[in-house]
Amino acid sequence: MADSAKPHPFDAALALEPLGGDHFRGHTSAAYWNMVGPFGGITAAGILQGVLRHPALLGEPVSITVNYAAGLVEGAFELQVRPVRTNRSTQHWMVELTQATAQGERQTMVTATVLTAARRETWTQRDMPMPPGPAAAEVTRLQGRGPIAWFSQYEMRPIQGAIPRTWDGVPSALPPEEASTTRLWLRDDPPRPLDFCALCAYADNFYPRVWLRRPRHVPAGTVSFTVYFHADGAMLRAQGDGHVLCQARGQAFFNGFFDQSAQLWSLDGTLLATSTQIVYYKE
Amino acid sequence: MADSAKPHPFDAALALEPLGGDHFRGHTSAAYWNMVGPFGGITAAGILQGVLRHPALLGEPVSITVNYAAGLVEGAFELQVRPVRTNRSTQHWMVELTQATAQGERQTMVTATVLTAARRETWTQRDMPMPPGPAAAEVTRLQGRGPIAWFSQYEMRPIQGAIPRTWDGVPSALPPEEASTTRLWLRDDPPRPLDFCALCAYADNFYPRVWLRRPRHVPAGTVSFTVYFHADGAMLRAQGDGHVLCQARGQAFFNGFFDQSAQLWSLDGTLLATSTQIVYYKE
Repeated sequence: MADSAKPHPFDAALALEPLGGDHFRGHTSAAYWNMVGPFGGITAAGILQGVLRHPALLGEPVSITVNYAAGLVEGAFELQVRPVRTNRSTQHWMVELTQATAQGERQTMVTATVLTAARRETWTQRDMPMPPGPAAAEVTRLQGRGPIAWFSQYEMRPIQGAIPRTWDGVPSALPPEEASTTRLWLRDDPPRPLDFCALCAYADNFYPRVWLRRPRHVPAGTVSFTVYFHADGAMLRAQGDGHVLCQARGQAFFNGFFDQSAQLWSLDGTLLATSTQIVYYKE
Repeated sequence: MADSAKPHPFDAALALEPLGGDHFRGHTSAAYWNMVGPFGGITAAGILQGVLRHPALLGEPVSITVNYAAGLVEGAFELQVRPVRTNRSTQHWMVELTQATAQGERQTMVTATVLTAARRETWTQRDMPMPPGPAAAEVTRLQGRGPIAWFSQYEMRPIQGAIPRTWDGVPSALPPEEASTTRLWLRDDPPRPLDFCALCAYADNFYPRVWLRRPRHVPAGTVSFTVYFHADGAMLRAQGDGHVLCQARGQAFFNGFFDQSAQLWSLDGTLLATSTQIVYYKE
């Protein structure tokens, strides 16, 4: 269990200081560090947090697109979070994350657009059923993730498509719909009640699909990342700190960029979010 | 055939006047009008055109996300097309489309982010094979689309999931992966060689999935639209003016918003683009 006197590491990483107007200051988090910059999911969640903290907020998140323009450096960053258009029930946001260079010049590192909305009850239907498989408790937890700090902030229980152990470069012989598919149970460690920011970060938990499709440890990094939320805040709260089933696959790998499509289901099989990203890769 | 003295209607609709710096002026197109505003695909293509016309452009489009914040009104609009970050081989863009109110106030109608890149040759693999089916010539062309102007700019040959003829409100009894699926052969009318802007518009050609999933003619409109390109300009040029196979389905319909995932293949079965969108719907 978490020390109740201290915030959860995820909440600590999302802490923002209001600077007035549309501006907030945040700090990169050592706990969520990746290889050469922060875990992309924590950056996306921090941007969403900026929108959720804005006093003009209308409704709840429906979609977010985050573009990673440059690798963040360790330290402070600023968010400019602009509500560019507020309608009766929807609101459109543009976000820029900047960092100051050693010379004091402010550079754009990340851009984002966010849609929030006051949802109304309508006919509802989910057509992407949770794939059958073992319960989280029946799946072995991934251990010993080495030097990547953010892995330690999550409990990952891969059912299919765990990170390769042998980097032989031989493309997968599985059928196309399975060749780059990873499926895992995921939650925060220590466990933390689910919310929009956490779900946004979960959607970026997958290692690069190209590593699975052709096991070569090539440089790779997300350049644009989109999440659509198919749940409201009450549904996420009802999920508590239960595991989320996460699934991702690629559709095309072409001259330096591949796509990833992902789905995230609650314990009871409700599709909570869908996500896509386009990822740079070398060679 | 098109009158060779006149530009193709698609090119006429994308005409932009440079205003200096990052600014361009365009005009809505009567030929691509939808019910209460322009066809979303022509707006997205116009924004991409702004990036392609910018003198600082690096490389070719890899991804675009367009957010429809408000319905455009007939007449002039302005694009602010900002290259916010230029790296060695990638470039990130933020775009705002504004229109002036009768009182002269400039309002944001559409926002977008675009990624362009100078691609390098790498290992390439496409894992979303074109579904088997009849050739374009074997499929009956959709006729008599009534008052929607932009339908007349396209030759649509639906193989599966054409727009319902009976609005009985009874949800589809097909299995979940087929219940909201439309598949069609598509090209411009008159035919026009394929390029990034055309492909971007093609990705938004589908009528709202909710109309197919539950045949009720409810108000619906795209709020955020993303296209990932899995081809380069030379590949698109090689496609000429051949038909493109377009497929779309929804994964979730929840309290006012549903998603749409789409794929677009060339005549020879190459996956040219993948796309997602989140769409508002009523009731």
